[in-house]
Amino acid sequence: MEQFSDLTAAQTFTETENRMNAEQIIATLKTLVDDGKVLTDPSDLDTYGKDWTKIYPPKPMAIVFPKTTEQVQALVKFANEHQVALVPSGGRTGLSAGAVAANGEVVVAFDYMNQIIDFSASDRTVRCQAGVITEQLQNFAEENGLYYPVDFASAGSSQLGGNLSTNAGGIKVIRYGMSRDWVAGLKVVTGKGDILELNKDLEKNNTGYDLRHLFIGAEGTLGFITEATMKLSRKPDNLTVLVLGLNDLTNTMDVLQSFQKQIDLTAYEFFSHQAMQHVLAHGQVQAPFETEAPYYALLEFEATSDQVMDDAMALFEQCVENGWVLDGVISQSETQAQNLWQLRERISESIAPRTPYKNDISVVVSKVPPFLTEIDAVVTEHYPDFEIIWFGHIGDGNLHLNILKPEGMANEDFFEKCQQVNKWVFEIVERHQGSVSAEHGVGMTKKPYLQYTRSETEIAYLKGIKQVFDPKGIMNPGKLFD
Amino acid sequence: MEQFSDLTAAQTFTETENRMNAEQIIATLKTLVDDGKVLTDPSDLDTYGKDWTKIYPPKPMAIVFPKTTEQVQALVKFANEHQVALVPSGGRTGLSAGAVAANGEVVVAFDYMNQIIDFSASDRTVRCQAGVITEQLQNFAEENGLYYPVDFASAGSSQLGGNLSTNAGGIKVIRYGMSRDWVAGLKVVTGKGDILELNKDLEKNNTGYDLRHLFIGAEGTLGFITEATMKLSRKPDNLTVLVLGLNDLTNTMDVLQSFQKQIDLTAYEFFSHQAMQHVLAHGQVQAPFETEAPYYALLEFEATSDQVMDDAMALFEQCVENGWVLDGVISQSETQAQNLWQLRERISESIAPRTPYKNDISVVVSKVPPFLTEIDAVVTEHYPDFEIIWFGHIGDGNLHLNILKPEGMANEDFFEKCQQVNKWVFEIVERHQGSVSAEHGVGMTKKPYLQYTRSETEIAYLKGIKQVFDPKGIMNPGKLFD
Repeated sequence: MEQFSDLTAAQTFTETENRMNAEQIIATLKTLVDDGKVLTDPSDLDTYGKDWTKIYPPKPMAIVFPKTTEQVQALVKFANEHQVALVPSGGRTGLSAGAVAANGEVVVAFDYMNQIIDFSASDRTVRCQAGVITEQLQNFAEENGLYYPVDFASAGSSQLGGNLSTNAGGIKVIRYGMSRDWVAGLKVVTGKGDILELNKDLEKNNTGYDLRHLFIGAEGTLGFITEATMKLSRKPDNLTVLVLGLNDLTNTMDVLQSFQKQIDLTAYEFFSHQAMQHVLAHGQVQAPFETEAPYYALLEFEATSDQVMDDAMALFEQCVENGWVLDGVISQSETQAQNLWQLRERISESIAPRTPYKNDISVVVSKVPPFLTEIDAVVTEHYPDFEIIWFGHIGDGNLHLNILKPEGMANEDFFEKCQQVNKWVFEIVERHQGSVSAEHGVGMTKKPYLQYTRSETEIAYLKGIKQVFDPKGIMNPGKLFD
Repeated sequence: MEQFSDLTAAQTFTETENRMNAEQIIATLKTLVDDGKVLTDPSDLDTYGKDWTKIYPPKPMAIVFPKTTEQVQALVKFANEHQVALVPSGGRTGLSAGAVAANGEVVVAFDYMNQIIDFSASDRTVRCQAGVITEQLQNFAEENGLYYPVDFASAGSSQLGGNLSTNAGGIKVIRYGMSRDWVAGLKVVTGKGDILELNKDLEKNNTGYDLRHLFIGAEGTLGFITEATMKLSRKPDNLTVLVLGLNDLTNTMDVLQSFQKQIDLTAYEFFSHQAMQHVLAHGQVQAPFETEAPYYALLEFEATSDQVMDDAMALFEQCVENGWVLDGVISQSETQAQNLWQLRERISESIAPRTPYKNDISVVVSKVPPFLTEIDAVVTEHYPDFEIIWFGHIGDGNLHLNILKPEGMANEDFFEKCQQVNKWVFEIVERHQGSVSAEHGVGMTKKPYLQYTRSETEIAYLKGIKQVFDPKGIMNPGKLFD
């Protein structure tokens, strides 16, 4: 695959003076972390060298597990001295190959930096090591009567450091924003080996450039995030779900606008009729109502009083009167709400056996209908046998495009055609001033397409910043850009 | 004053090859902007060369008023070629001398880039030129049934570009965050003269380092913000104000924590008894109740239903039972709510005749009580005749420290003593890991104290970033750091 040609950065290190051979490097690594915390078995190299993309064959030199920020710093200083490429590794749930080690790099895994260090009820903040699992943080918040609102499918295994390095979003962005919005402070080790305490957990602090926001979403190319102080929120009250059958794609916008004027939505998701058919065929989930609709919207909100429920019902009726909504159902209990969510949440697993080509793209909300229609048209024109499944976080403009492999088509043939689809999709993304990666990051898979969202001039500034924090290019080389 | 010694950056430009004399520079400026948009009259130089600090005598060479981003770009390219120092100028309401031109710089004023360019009801975004006045944006939002929630005393004259360059906060941060949180996209001209479209107004966009967040709060040292797409919110409903008399400073935390568990506060302010006495003496405002208390808290929330009001009353009663609250009053109408706000909002004007020494500092919320007590103690110990007035946004840890000049003390004598107070205050800020500038920025007044909040190592990275965007050092030299 063409992406591989870009991945030679790690190999160029062998030309420098201070280089060590693999044996020497591994021996030194063992002096920098705790006993037994350097792995080199082939099965470990395979496990820790890849993420969920599984496109690039993993080939790390070793896996190290630091336990403290100081050990991370020692690793970075060593890497600088001897030009050793380092790849950060969290829960390895990434979908852009941002945490893949395919070129003899040393993987720095945060599995043993998984402690919740501090909690302040007054400040509603919790200080975590980078290896804390998303669900661990969610549960901790709940145990303390609070709420960590960033949530997504991989919450059970993704680590906080990885979430922040890709600025993960998920299903509640319309109300709660991205991971970025919940970071009060960060401790990082820069690519030069400096430990920085960024923002000191302050709510208000206007003392020069906010480096915290530079490390968030940097995919480990500027340094390692080792600790983060995360903000927590009030627990939402009586979350209620409304599923609507829509007459037309543009009605998603009409419905959104009507509801947002009166009710703070905590989620606004959508999925196509085809998507729902796959979920129903997969079993265990019922259709929300008998009426068939081309598209469905799922709205969630806090029904904090009867007034809110009355407002929601009045809005629903108005949407029906306007011809936007064909039918709908509202949850009357927590169980019903969870069941309705299944319609949206089970899409991915229901289509998984069909080897879907996946793409995570975004535009501003109002451009979703024409954007989706254009992509549909170009794919259908060229590949009429491709089944397109749309779903996603339409309330924030983030669509998940999934194309299913036709039965009987060879994988290789399908993947090759999908490369062509990529080009069409990203050209449409560029025309609509969208993003080639809404929430999965760039890593290696989106690297060849970065210029569809960021201009060449802008990319030159990104490289300038990289040079400031990681002048030797040891931090996750070959990711984001070359 | 010692700050002046740092301000020689602009003068070093005279050593370069390409330099022009003032006459040549002014002649060229006239070719780069519209007719009549270069001012050099002494009164204009005086007006546009200073902000609200009024410490540094203004001495700009000229004032230019671009009308387009392309004109700004032309100015920056010219400045690069001939080493001309540029100072951005918005509403000039700054309190850290970030927009002061005291060394023969060319002031670039955005007064004629004051158009609202675009509005999208579906996206709830509005595209503004940098010179749009805060209140103009607030009013525009209201006319369209929406809400721009960033609000502060200078909203009637501060410009959006300036707000973003200092990441202004104000009185609703506890609910709505800082200016930063409302920026969907930015158009900037970098110090090298490149026009960049940052983030393309997207809600989700994880394609490399977020340069948008680097320009926000940069005080014009990396380039000019020329346009911003701002997000808008649902209009708040039935805003209700509760003023409480507190038994003790630590009760501010108890009350905050109790209420936040159940109600989303839109503001949580506090002021001392002394502060209120000045407001009452100033006239037009009534005491909220007869009971005297050492501290007062002002809470605001949306009373969207009777349930919320019942919850608030129950919480109030619980706070009284716990001995935290001595007395309280709740607004029953919008007028009453506005009247209660006067108790907090009129503090600044009521103490203005007493030549207050002002400082805008922050710590994490839970550290407010010991932090304030320590500062009180050290000032009172050394200067028992100084009257200290405390108020501020205690819900986000941002305190406004005001010290009133004793009657009869000479201004100079007072200012000199305040320099000593500065040092004590910032040492206490550093010990509590706070910020020497919560929301006013660094500019020139806080520059000598930057290292109390940002480490020397961190400041070196800030300088590295500056070098990437403004290698010739033409953008607002002498501000933030040297």
